Amino acid sequence: MTVSTHAAAERIESDGQDPTPADQPAVTFDRHPGTYRHWRLEVDGEVARVVLDVDEDGGLVPGYQLTMNTYDLGVDIELYDLTQRLRFEHPGVRAVVLTSGKEKNFCAGANIRMLAQSPHPWKVNFCKFTNETRNGIEDVTENSGQTWIAALGGTAAGGGYELALACEQILLVDDGSSAVALPEVPLLGVLPGTGGLTRITDKRRVRKDRADVFATKSEGLRGKTAVAWRLVDETLPRTGFDEAVAERAREAAARSARPTDAIGIELTPLEREVTEDGIRYRHVRADVDRGKGIVTITVYGPNPSGVPESIDRIHQLGADFWPLAMTRELDDLILRLRSNELDLGIWVIKTRGDVESALAFERVVKEHSIKQHSSGDWLVNEIRHYFKRTLKRLDVTSRSLIALIEPGSCFAGALLELALVCDRQYMLEGTWEDAETSEEGEEAQLVLTASNFGAFPMSNGLSRLASRFYGDDEHLELLRGETDRRILATEAVELGLVTEAYDDIDWEDDVRMALEERSSLSPDALTGMEANHRFVGPETMETRIFGRLTAWQNWIFIRPNAAGPDGALRRYGTGRKAVFDRKRV
Amino acid sequence: MTVSTHAAAERIESDGQDPTPADQPAVTFDRHPGTYRHWRLEVDGEVARVVLDVDEDGGLVPGYQLTMNTYDLGVDIELYDLTQRLRFEHPGVRAVVLTSGKEKNFCAGANIRMLAQSPHPWKVNFCKFTNETRNGIEDVTENSGQTWIAALGGTAAGGGYELALACEQILLVDDGSSAVALPEVPLLGVLPGTGGLTRITDKRRVRKDRADVFATKSEGLRGKTAVAWRLVDETLPRTGFDEAVAERAREAAARSARPTDAIGIELTPLEREVTEDGIRYRHVRADVDRGKGIVTITVYGPNPSGVPESIDRIHQLGADFWPLAMTRELDDLILRLRSNELDLGIWVIKTRGDVESALAFERVVKEHSIKQHSSGDWLVNEIRHYFKRTLKRLDVTSRSLIALIEPGSCFAGALLELALVCDRQYMLEGTWEDAETSEEGEEAQLVLTASNFGAFPMSNGLSRLASRFYGDDEHLELLRGETDRRILATEAVELGLVTEAYDDIDWEDDVRMALEERSSLSPDALTGMEANHRFVGPETMETRIFGRLTAWQNWIFIRPNAAGPDGALRRYGTGRKAVFDRKRV
Repeated sequence: MTVSTHAAAERIESDGQDPTPADQPAVTFDRHPGTYRHWRLEVDGEVARVVLDVDEDGGLVPGYQLTMNTYDLGVDIELYDLTQRLRFEHPGVRAVVLTSGKEKNFCAGANIRMLAQSPHPWKVNFCKFTNETRNGIEDVTENSGQTWIAALGGTAAGGGYELALACEQILLVDDGSSAVALPEVPLLGVLPGTGGLTRITDKRRVRKDRADVFATKSEGLRGKTAVAWRLVDETLPRTGFDEAVAERAREAAARSARPTDAIGIELTPLEREVTEDGIRYRHVRADVDRGKGIVTITVYGPNPSGVPESIDRIHQLGADFWPLAMTRELDDLILRLRSNELDLGIWVIKTRGDVESALAFERVVKEHSIKQHSSGDWLVNEIRHYFKRTLKRLDVTSRSLIALIEPGSCFAGALLELALVCDRQYMLEGTWEDAETSEEGEEAQLVLTASNFGAFPMSNGLSRLASRFYGDDEHLELLRGETDRRILATEAVELGLVTEAYDDIDWEDDVRMALEERSSLSPDALTGMEANHRFVGPETMETRIFGRLTAWQNWIFIRPNAAGPDGALRRYGTGRKAVFDRKRV
Repeated sequence: MTVSTHAAAERIESDGQDPTPADQPAVTFDRHPGTYRHWRLEVDGEVARVVLDVDEDGGLVPGYQLTMNTYDLGVDIELYDLTQRLRFEHPGVRAVVLTSGKEKNFCAGANIRMLAQSPHPWKVNFCKFTNETRNGIEDVTENSGQTWIAALGGTAAGGGYELALACEQILLVDDGSSAVALPEVPLLGVLPGTGGLTRITDKRRVRKDRADVFATKSEGLRGKTAVAWRLVDETLPRTGFDEAVAERAREAAARSARPTDAIGIELTPLEREVTEDGIRYRHVRADVDRGKGIVTITVYGPNPSGVPESIDRIHQLGADFWPLAMTRELDDLILRLRSNELDLGIWVIKTRGDVESALAFERVVKEHSIKQHSSGDWLVNEIRHYFKRTLKRLDVTSRSLIALIEPGSCFAGALLELALVCDRQYMLEGTWEDAETSEEGEEAQLVLTASNFGAFPMSNGLSRLASRFYGDDEHLELLRGETDRRILATEAVELGLVTEAYDDIDWEDDVRMALEERSSLSPDALTGMEANHRFVGPETMETRIFGRLTAWQNWIFIRPNAAGPDGALRRYGTGRKAVFDRKRV
């Protein structure tokens, strides 16, 4: 939330259609603390301070000023980079204080001028990414012992307060004016888009009538009421605020099980080659067919000779350790395709490599993973959670995901999740007739391992297998007896692990037809259908954010009451009141 | 789903905007088997046959033919009436066979021409009502021992199959052509809007990749595959189909705990007076302030002298028994306001009457309610479930609900749910200064009873109190100790039962300001916010249908890919293919 100047606001297009997007260059996600424009990362032993100090002129695209510590996608990309570096490069950090570099203003949320000028897909994609970053903050607090604490030395409004809600504790200065607020509904005619409505009721357990009052009160709440309503954990006087915050951080750090003597690894710059036809990384490549609207993503398994013999070797390899290197590349690719390639509606996912090597890597990871009540290696633990989060990104990606399981692929264990994440799985039965390499001459195979039964839970808390066979515990139990061996196509069909198997004669035509048919369907209907099918059974705060909240927000984002020329989002800051169609729907 | 003729389809407006609605008269919900145009109800002892036989010329509004046994709101209003009469007038019915009066065609779903010509709010309201009716079919199967069985003697497509999905069993004729299908995504570019996507995965436990295939396959599936995929329970040859269906019905009837000797009560026509300013029933009235966009709904408690002394007296009273009479009127009012009064965005809910009488009625109902492992009175049981369903309608009503608790009100026990269903509760502290009657001179009060702790669960399976204090079991326990006594305003605030209490001096201004402020907000943002806040915590199939599925469908319904002049919904049946903006969002 920011109060735009009138002069600036007049530049908003008011032609009755979606605001014309600026001709936005491709979004990139390579950041480094040395290049941050909006954040400072200050590490001091067990405690890090993360300071939001937005550069007004540093908007990702032209057309708006990032006044009032408001953010756009660019600000959030830096935040994401920062959370990753804290996890991998600063393992000794056990508590993170999130604060602001501006006097009396924590953060006024997403920049409204930016929202008003952004086309619908940009807004939706922006909300998705910011939600993922906030979920990541909760993930590191819960699973990695790096506890985030929001120290609000000034007002946190809209997305600013939602950022605080992602932290485990919220401390608010008690200065008679600083408040927390969700002014989206009353001022902008949209919802708080990064989990605010869900987190106040489900996480902070604000009574639902109070949640209603709070979310319609543009000025928000402060002081005792904010504490009594559970909107913040504590208010603290301005004098001694920093000391009190530091004390809370020390307390949180003391509770962490994170090792104190760990030495970080460097997240070195990703190597990639971008061409018209795709993107190539070391372990991942994307091949684009724009005519058909398809991108084929191939993940390459590890080198057979590269299985590290010890945990020391894994640390020595650092960002070159295949599971981490591959995950970073895949993560980057997902983010780039989502932001820059809206017309590629089908993502075909393949793997390529040696099954035994993939399993060997998995065994090393498993051996050093943190299990309940025992401490494993912090780095291995971080890598597992990172791969988990990357798979979750695929779960909520609004593209059709189709796995092709062919000879020479290595969908085994953790890599099998890349098939299970897909809407459909097609598998070749038998071998290629014209196989040129011995690898291709082998039959396509899958391997289930223990890690498919819970190492990489979806947002609904279930493994992808448990989601796939929701309610059929007997079959899940049967599958547990089928781990650690090669499963060929006919059996994969019988076990329900793939949608269809075709032999060499039919493969090309049947797969092509399936993809063409998919391409012909309404992209919106597919988005809605996939969002409904991918998460069955139980729901969590996360699934509610990506399901219910996001869907309502998307609806509101294209309603004239918000996005029309007289809508609240476009009129905000112009001095003119929004004009609403008062019909309730 | 229906194949419109080209001639008919050409009448669709193609002006690039929402299709102009026909000047639709007010929708009414009074129906009676004697006046049904689209259904036949055939009761034969323990088994009833419900036959869908749509009159093509019987559309509720002009502009479309109900070909292929397709339905519109009018068809569904009759179905709703029929389900109610089965419960109350035919208590001896223990199994219901849902079938079709057309040869080789069960039902082709919602009429597409109707959808294409309907404005956005009509489509949304239509889907909500049809969803509620289908949930009601599941409710009677689960809670009242009247088990619905779908006997598909022909193809069930789209909403036709979704109707079958609401039944406990689905029997499909095996004739080499009859199929079940969800062709909405491939043919219309929208979602199956009455729970199809949710029920195939969550209820019938179709594997999610198969759900994906099925929901994109316009021709659907039949025979062995339909059974293997769990889309239907059985396929049966055409010869002997009716006998086999009858046998399944007898089996279901035999499992029912419903009494065999029960005598139904008649659901007599509702008495109401409709004026420009509102609607008056015997126990409920609505006063409309169109200028402010507010309707005040007052529910009148029972007459002190009318508490029935015996269960026989309750049956004798039948539709005149206050809890049933009041619930029927409230239900009718909710449906009328939702369909006909889109501009009344705020529903103020009041009660008026004697607290002791309300509690006396509640005791009678409770005494005869069916509890686990014991059989109570079937009629009392039906009334409780009907009030539960009516409260659930309020939960999913896209209007702001505000309870005003004043002197002379009777928010006690079951009637307290009418306050708890609201987004906010305002209560008068003290008495009116200028009270004219002794009743008004008393302080406003609330009474908690045992029934507030589970007799009327919301769609999320929780009581409204458990939803209100989600996660605070301690407070819920404390409230259990505060039942069966008068709670005045100050204490109601302390106990968290009301949002605010104002004294006589502030009441008028503060309530007026709260309502005016609410009126000034974006109706769409309020719809989204309320939908998010009303259901906290756990989710069920129902909340997913009203939450995630509905929200995505609403979004899709206003996207040009569906509803634009070149969209799939508008182009269907014209012979011209839809033109899609291929960008994925």
